[in-house]
Formats: sequence, C-alpha cells, structure tokens
Amino acid sequence: MSKDFNQRALEYHEQQPAGKLAIHITKPTATQDDLSLAYSPGVAAPVRAIAEDPELAYRYTGKGNLVAVITDGTAVLGLGNVGALASKPVMEGKGVLFKAFANIDVFDIEVDAAQPEDFINTVARIAGGFGGINLEDIAAPHCFEIERRLSERLDIPVFHDDQHGTAIITAAGLVNALEIQGKKLSEAKIVCVGAGAAGIASMQLLVRLGAAKKNLFMVDRKGVIHSQRDDLNEYKQIFAVDTDARSLADACAGADVFIGLSGPDLLTAEMLRSMAPKPIVFALSNPDPEIRPELAHATRDDLIMATGRSDYPNQVNNVLGFPFIFRGALDVRARTINDEMLVAAVHALAGLAREPVPQVVLDAYGLETLEFGPNYILPTPFDPRLIDTVPQAISQAARDSGVARL
Amino acid sequence: MSKDFNQRALEYHEQQPAGKLAIHITKPTATQDDLSLAYSPGVAAPVRAIAEDPELAYRYTGKGNLVAVITDGTAVLGLGNVGALASKPVMEGKGVLFKAFANIDVFDIEVDAAQPEDFINTVARIAGGFGGINLEDIAAPHCFEIERRLSERLDIPVFHDDQHGTAIITAAGLVNALEIQGKKLSEAKIVCVGAGAAGIASMQLLVRLGAAKKNLFMVDRKGVIHSQRDDLNEYKQIFAVDTDARSLADACAGADVFIGLSGPDLLTAEMLRSMAPKPIVFALSNPDPEIRPELAHATRDDLIMATGRSDYPNQVNNVLGFPFIFRGALDVRARTINDEMLVAAVHALAGLAREPVPQVVLDAYGLETLEFGPNYILPTPFDPRLIDTVPQAISQAARDSGVARL
Repeated sequence: MSKDFNQRALEYHEQQPAGKLAIHITKPTATQDDLSLAYSPGVAAPVRAIAEDPELAYRYTGKGNLVAVITDGTAVLGLGNVGALASKPVMEGKGVLFKAFANIDVFDIEVDAAQPEDFINTVARIAGGFGGINLEDIAAPHCFEIERRLSERLDIPVFHDDQHGTAIITAAGLVNALEIQGKKLSEAKIVCVGAGAAGIASMQLLVRLGAAKKNLFMVDRKGVIHSQRDDLNEYKQIFAVDTDARSLADACAGADVFIGLSGPDLLTAEMLRSMAPKPIVFALSNPDPEIRPELAHATRDDLIMATGRSDYPNQVNNVLGFPFIFRGALDVRARTINDEMLVAAVHALAGLAREPVPQVVLDAYGLETLEFGPNYILPTPFDPRLIDTVPQAISQAARDSGVARL
Repeated sequence: MSKDFNQRALEYHEQQPAGKLAIHITKPTATQDDLSLAYSPGVAAPVRAIAEDPELAYRYTGKGNLVAVITDGTAVLGLGNVGALASKPVMEGKGVLFKAFANIDVFDIEVDAAQPEDFINTVARIAGGFGGINLEDIAAPHCFEIERRLSERLDIPVFHDDQHGTAIITAAGLVNALEIQGKKLSEAKIVCVGAGAAGIASMQLLVRLGAAKKNLFMVDRKGVIHSQRDDLNEYKQIFAVDTDARSLADACAGADVFIGLSGPDLLTAEMLRSMAPKPIVFALSNPDPEIRPELAHATRDDLIMATGRSDYPNQVNNVLGFPFIFRGALDVRARTINDEMLVAAVHALAGLAREPVPQVVLDAYGLETLEFGPNYILPTPFDPRLIDTVPQAISQAARDSGVARL
C-alpha cells in the first residue's frame, strides 16, 4: 500500500471518536420514568423472565441481533501473529461490515490466550449473551479444533469466517466459472496453494459440492500434499492424494482450476501455460495475488480469473458472505451454521450473479453494463439484492436441516 | 412493583429492536474507498502501529472510550444468583446509563463461571480491548478478591460499582447530612446493617474519610460484628469492634447514623427513638427501605433521611457516580481507580449539592426551589453540572496520585 493510503487509513481511524464503533441507545431515556424502565427497578421483570426461561433473552435483550467477533490475534490479515490487542482495528472493521451490510450488532473481543484450551474456555464462558460467534484471524491448525469444540459446546452459531466465509465465496465463484468454461466440478482437476484455514475449508466445501477428492491437489510450503508424506497434520492428511506430482509446477500441468490462498507471484506464466484449456485462476492472496492479472491474461486468452482485490473484476470478497449468513442464521435463531447452510449460501450467491444486474449496481460502479460472463461471476458487495436473497436461503436451509428454533 | 409497571418494563425491553443497545458506526462507509479504509487493506496500518506500541490502541480504536460491564450473575439487584444470562437486562441497562450520562460506550459481558478463578481469568484475557472494567452484581465475599486480583493484573481501571459506587454516593450524602446536623464524622457513631459488598466498601471509605473504626458498628444476619465472633470472613474481621452490643437494637442506642444496605423494615420506630439527637438514617434497601420514610419522620422530627428511591428526597443513586468517575478516569487514561479518586468523587458530589441549584434542574423535577438542607443533601441525576465537575475532579486526583497516563 502506498504511504498516502496508509496515512489516510490512520487518519480515518484516529478521527474523533477514535475507532469505528460506538454504542447507540435504542430506547427512550429522557425522563426519570424512562430510566426506571431501562434500569432499576424496571429490569427486574425481564431478569426474572429470563431466569425462568433462557429463551426469553432473545425477546428482552439484544442477544438475538448480537454477534461476538472474536480473535486471539494469531493470524491477522497477511500480518501474522500480531497479538490480541493489535488485531482490534480488524475486529472493529468486521463489526462495521456486519452493521453496514446486515444491521447486525457486533462486540469485538480480542482474547489474550496462549493456549487453545484457554481461548475455548474464555469464549464459551462469555458466549451466553450473544446470538452468534464469528471467529476471526485464528491460525491453523488450532482454528479447526477451536471451532469444532466451541460448536459442540454452544447452542448458537460458531463460524470461523477465514475458513467458511472464504470457502463459500470461492465456491460460488468457481461454480459459475466452471459453468462458463463448460466444465463439471466432479471432473475438474483443482490445485489449491495454501493449506491453512481457508485452503482446507475451501477444499472441504468443494468436496461437499461434488468435487472428487482424488482431483484435488493441495500444495503447502513443502510442495504437493501426497500420500507418501509423513509430516501432515490431521486436516491436511484428509487431502493427501496418491500422485507422483511433487512441486506446484507438477500439480499445475493439466489442471482446470488454480486456487491461490497463499502469497504473491507463486503461479508463473509457465505454470499457467501448462494448465488445461479454458483454465480458471483464483489468485486470492491480498493485496498481491499469486499471479498478476495483467500477466495472466497476457499468457492465456481462454482464462477466467478472480482475485481478492476490488480494482479488478471478479473480487472474491468475504463481505458477500458473513453478514448475510449470520443474518439468515439469527433470523431463525439457528443453533449452528451447518454444511447445508454453507451450500445454500454458495448456490444463493452463484445464482444471484446469473440474474440481470439492477441499475443501482451499475450506478454504484459507474458501469454501462454488467452481464454474467468471464468478468462477472460473483455479485458485487453493494448489490442490494444480497440482503434480500442470501439470508432467506440460509434461514430456509436451517429450517430444512432442523437447526432453526423459529 | 405493580403489575402495570412490570408489564410496561417488559414492553419497553421487547419493543423492536429488542433490548436497549445497538452498534453505531462512527465513520463513513458509503463507498468502496470508505470500506477499504475501515477494513482491508486500510486496517493494516493501525494494526502495525499498535503491534509496535500498544498505547496507540487508544489512538486508533475505540478502546479509550469503551468500558466492559461484566458480571457473573451471582448477586443481581435484589434477586440474588440468577445466573449469567438472566443478568443481561441489568448489564445492558448499565450500558444505557454510561452512555446517556457520560457518553461512554459499553459492551455488556455476562460470564458463566462457577469459580472466581475462572471468572478472573476470563475477564483478564478479554480486558485488553477495553479502557476500563466495571464489575457488577458479583456476590460478596468473592467480589473483593476478584476486584483486587484483576486490579493487580490489569493496567486499566477495574471498579466494582456495587462496592465503591454505593460507598461514594453514601459517603457524599453523609458528609453533607453531618454538616447540616452539626456533627463530625470522626466522632459519629455509625451503625451499618448489611456487611456485603456495599456495606464493607462504604465503611472502608468512611474510615478513609476520617471516621473512627471503633465507632463503626456493622451488623450482619447474625447481629453485631464484634471481636468475640469466630465466624467472620477476613473482610468483616477488619470491622469487628470491642463491644457488648449484640443486636441491631443494641447498636442503634445512641447512634448518630444508621446506614441500611440490607432489607425492608429492619429499623423499627423504637430503635430510631433510641438513636442520638439529630440522627441520620440512610435506608437504602430498594425498593423497600429499612424503615418507611413516613414512619421515620413521624417518629423523629430532628431526622435527616435518605433512601434509594426516586420518589422521596435525598436519593442515594449510583448513577451520580460511575458514569462520571469512569469519564474522569478514561479522560486521563488512568491505570486504576484508587482511593484518592474515590475521595475526590465524594467531595465533588458533596460540594455540588451545596451550590445553588440551576433552573434546568428545578424544571426537570417540577420544583419551585431546592436548597442545600435536610431534604437536599445530594445532587439529582439530571443535574447537568455533574458531567462538568465530577470527571474533572477524578482526572485531577488521578494525576495528583500518579496513576494518569495523560
């Protein structure tokens, strides 16, 4: 990022009131009578009601619209383990997006816990007052255990956005890119560079959507994740394939899909040339993708490409997912966010990109026209139809799969 | 409370949006550029800055104006141990008061922890993102250890309002009542019924202000806390006096001051008659005081009386304290709230009640006149001078005692 941009970002955060979130009182407080309802003695009645029936916390408190965005600060953006406190601008930013896109209230909580056990216990003990938990920027492989154990322990949705948020948007874009390229997910050879939270979760979701595990080639820092390796954690082990391919270049030969969730410039022009006809490249490392779009398009003219950046077409942006997924989950008081709901989100997003684009979206981006095709495989973040369609799909999937309380 | 009032309170809480607090975004979010400053990639700059210098969290995040109101739900209002979740309406209500009176943002956190150790660890791990911790409705004697250990562990103010908030307002009222009755705190015989969080802290503060420990008679469920008892916890032990008095009636004989922090109707007309000339009765049990004001005034016409109720003169109301104390502490980034700051709050509040009352206060209460005297010993909650005077006194005391960072 340029120095100017960083300076503007610091000023944006510093401007009074510092930070990005504040509290807003939603009920009258002008008179002594108002305050006697808001606090003592008025609170006694809802307290007694909730003590008798915990479900009434949804009726008498903010619980039902309140999500905790929680991190341990171990995997913040591309910056790594910056610690709990330094991650606060990111968590507050997430709160901004939840509020702006889905009117969900967020308390950002930065947990200073060296051990997963401590983190899990801390989150579990404070979870009761929230309608859902969005885990954020927690390093793999701990993030998998943390999410699993919290999901088992709590009766509210626990969602690690770096895993499932990224997986959903990637999968939605990929479903559409495959459609345009005339390929089938079940037959596609897919290379994924990066076997952290996002990589593992994306592959899991693609399998759930019909991809064949034998066609998935994950690549970590040591090369292809294959069945002869003895250095794999349990999550990578699931994706170990029986293959002679060892390097990223080996894996790319003949591949239909490249998914980059790792770092800059890992995909060379040579590798891209070796891919199958009509390849799909999702170079999602931010801000510097695994291959620059200019180089990619100059190398292959039969390409569909997506990045994590807003200044190129086909942005894979998590904001297309988490606000609407939680909106849908909260609206029916879902006990969890299960696979059926993730799949519903994929189809809702993919389907929306195939619909005619409303004028308001064209205006927002200063475009004359925008049509489903190689340069438009995903809805854009400012599409007002997102809030009308995705939450509904999530709520329905929650009901159909029996995890909705409403 | 009447059925009508409870019904109105439930409706107040239930009205959409449910609860009383919501999140408000304080910075622009209308455009793609805004969002790139609020979230990725804009957050990278403040994250890096804070990682290098944690103090910069005050500059770039909401930490400096953010207080966690935290409970374990063990001593909620007069309702007892209702559990963490059921206490949420109270904690949200506290957030309303912090915001309405001192523009402080509050995240309410209800901690489900059976052991003080678990509670302390949980709070300590999430504390970094906050500028201060307001502990609330935690049962004695655990509350003393919890506050002490958290204060030692954290470099932000940790304040148990049920202790110190109540102590400050009580002491401020008492200082003024003694002045009016022509008595000295150092010579006054004081009876305090209730030896929980509020009782212990109030006696500690009165000693700090000059009361003689030998003149303080605390009374718990078993009677006077005297030096022959062998059933006292370490906090009560400090106030054990060498006396023949055993019952509340024994203690009241010749007492100058009665402070009730216990339950309804404990002070009988007979006991009140036995008190010294010009007695002071603070019957603070809510909603039903230790003696009804009508009975008290009918019994003694040389009395000054205060209650916790808003429908009688001289309301001892914690809202006179905590919003302004935290405002003053946050304004100078105090590391703690120490005794010097508590004493400063007492004097600021007592002093304010001796000043001429502004017209806006008279209007708010529909009064012709209000003058320092037996029926006006404390400022009223809607007095606009509170925010101008109390925080300043707190900030100054923090600076003078060396705990201010600004």
